[in-house]
Amino acid sequence: MQSFELLSQKFSLHFDKLSLPKQPATLYEPDEYFLKMGGKRIRPVLCLMGNELVDEIKPDAWHVATAIELFHNFTLIHDDIMDNAPLRRGIASLHAKYGVNTAILAGDVMLVTAYDHINKIDHSYLHKILHLFNRAAREVCEGQQIDMDFERSESVSFDDYLHMIGQKTSVLLAASLKMGAILGGAGERNQNLLYEFGKKLGLAFQVQDDYLDAFGDPGKFGKQVGGDILANKKTFLLIRAMEAANESGKKELKSLLRSDDPGKVNKVLQIFRDSKVDEWALQLKNKFLDGAMDHLEDIAVISKRKEPLKELAHFLVIREF
Amino acid sequence: MQSFELLSQKFSLHFDKLSLPKQPATLYEPDEYFLKMGGKRIRPVLCLMGNELVDEIKPDAWHVATAIELFHNFTLIHDDIMDNAPLRRGIASLHAKYGVNTAILAGDVMLVTAYDHINKIDHSYLHKILHLFNRAAREVCEGQQIDMDFERSESVSFDDYLHMIGQKTSVLLAASLKMGAILGGAGERNQNLLYEFGKKLGLAFQVQDDYLDAFGDPGKFGKQVGGDILANKKTFLLIRAMEAANESGKKELKSLLRSDDPGKVNKVLQIFRDSKVDEWALQLKNKFLDGAMDHLEDIAVISKRKEPLKELAHFLVIREF
Repeated sequence: MQSFELLSQKFSLHFDKLSLPKQPATLYEPDEYFLKMGGKRIRPVLCLMGNELVDEIKPDAWHVATAIELFHNFTLIHDDIMDNAPLRRGIASLHAKYGVNTAILAGDVMLVTAYDHINKIDHSYLHKILHLFNRAAREVCEGQQIDMDFERSESVSFDDYLHMIGQKTSVLLAASLKMGAILGGAGERNQNLLYEFGKKLGLAFQVQDDYLDAFGDPGKFGKQVGGDILANKKTFLLIRAMEAANESGKKELKSLLRSDDPGKVNKVLQIFRDSKVDEWALQLKNKFLDGAMDHLEDIAVISKRKEPLKELAHFLVIREF
Repeated sequence: MQSFELLSQKFSLHFDKLSLPKQPATLYEPDEYFLKMGGKRIRPVLCLMGNELVDEIKPDAWHVATAIELFHNFTLIHDDIMDNAPLRRGIASLHAKYGVNTAILAGDVMLVTAYDHINKIDHSYLHKILHLFNRAAREVCEGQQIDMDFERSESVSFDDYLHMIGQKTSVLLAASLKMGAILGGAGERNQNLLYEFGKKLGLAFQVQDDYLDAFGDPGKFGKQVGGDILANKKTFLLIRAMEAANESGKKELKSLLRSDDPGKVNKVLQIFRDSKVDEWALQLKNKFLDGAMDHLEDIAVISKRKEPLKELAHFLVIREF
């Protein structure tokens, strides 16, 4: 079994060799530009690790991992348009550089390319993998729509936010693991346990993401600290603060959300601290992580094979960037 | 064998029963709205007719026809955003009614839904059908990008325009026919002849489309006559006129393309008539139609089975709406 780091390196080498058509260059150069931005390649590596949990990595797992990473990048291209995000990893987002119309189409053709890679696998697996891939793809779209709907809602409940994150983030991690496990020959029970592990891991991952945005070390965290607060984004922290803050805190929070106060980030962070949202978030993250680990524990393979997934899970939820 | 009209009615009944998920309604209601606009359903019926050319229509052909129509509608939703089109079939386009962000996502999830329907077919056909479907989908995206690139070019050659129309319009007609033929059990030679028939038919169809925009009967043609001229769209007619007009005509045409002259449409139409672009277009259409018919003739099935396709081809290229 190989560590996340090693598989991530191997996958990056593999993925960088991907060759898109050359013409029309006005369509494919933007896609090349976007893919060259890099990334942690977490999802495709989860697919490879899902396979390696039960057996040596099959060529089909590389095809599906490639499809997953293409799909993930398709969603990022379209999400950046919807979020009106000028930057991605510190450089111009695709639509900022090439225009919205090309970004729509460059995303579309990247999604079609993902299906091309799915179609490279052994025919006996095609129906099942396509089914899982489509379900995850649909749920990610649904999650993104719900997230956009939240921008217009005054208040969002914890359960609704949890459901949204489940769709937008967790299902793709879960499906990546499960597709890998299927291709590795895992039994149905193990496949499903791995899926549930991925879902919980995704939730823990998102809590950490929301936490870092508010309390991350500006020197280590790649993005602007407080970005979610400035964008009035619903996060685990904000939703909790709206419930847990005292009356004056709630009132101040509501009025800050509507304001352009230059001290907005610090004032909101103070309310978060006063209502102990930071501690609560760390507990919540650990709850999801423990839940994930319970599912992993239940999987019927020798525990040595689970080590890379355990390490990855801890890395994903303790990371400071 | 059944006529286009009958199959179109049957397909519409089938397609109208399609049920999308209910939640989130903010995502699926827009898709329902768009699909309810209706349409001629040409592409899915071509799939059914491709099947019926060789054998009784199989259940799989209905699944693929549904996927094709969903794919086509996905392209229309995204194209309307790119073209900044406020209307589709006389009512608000999806993005005009629900916003661009939802329109991007509603298109995305419709494309994923198309793949769900592809995945319903017999597993033995899945790889081949998915391959053809993906190729057509990719080429349609490429054609749309090239079409957008043309908007920024001063002049476009006839060959480049032909290539663009081939990608944007013809390949989906061709692939629809071919997928139907495969599911009906046609041999490879017949499949390919039918594909070439579809490609030529698509070109004839587009010539007619461009012709009607300029010379259609305003009472019969659903859209505003001269719409392409007002939008400075490259068409078969404009490209021909730039080649065939006399020097003063070319000069006037170039200056009209840059102007907002209220008499622009009539002046451009006059140049088209003076340089006999109308007659040329009818000849070009017939050339493509004859080419299509030659391929159909070559297909090794009894000619009676070809009648519905012949009728449809003539209908598509003599239509006045």
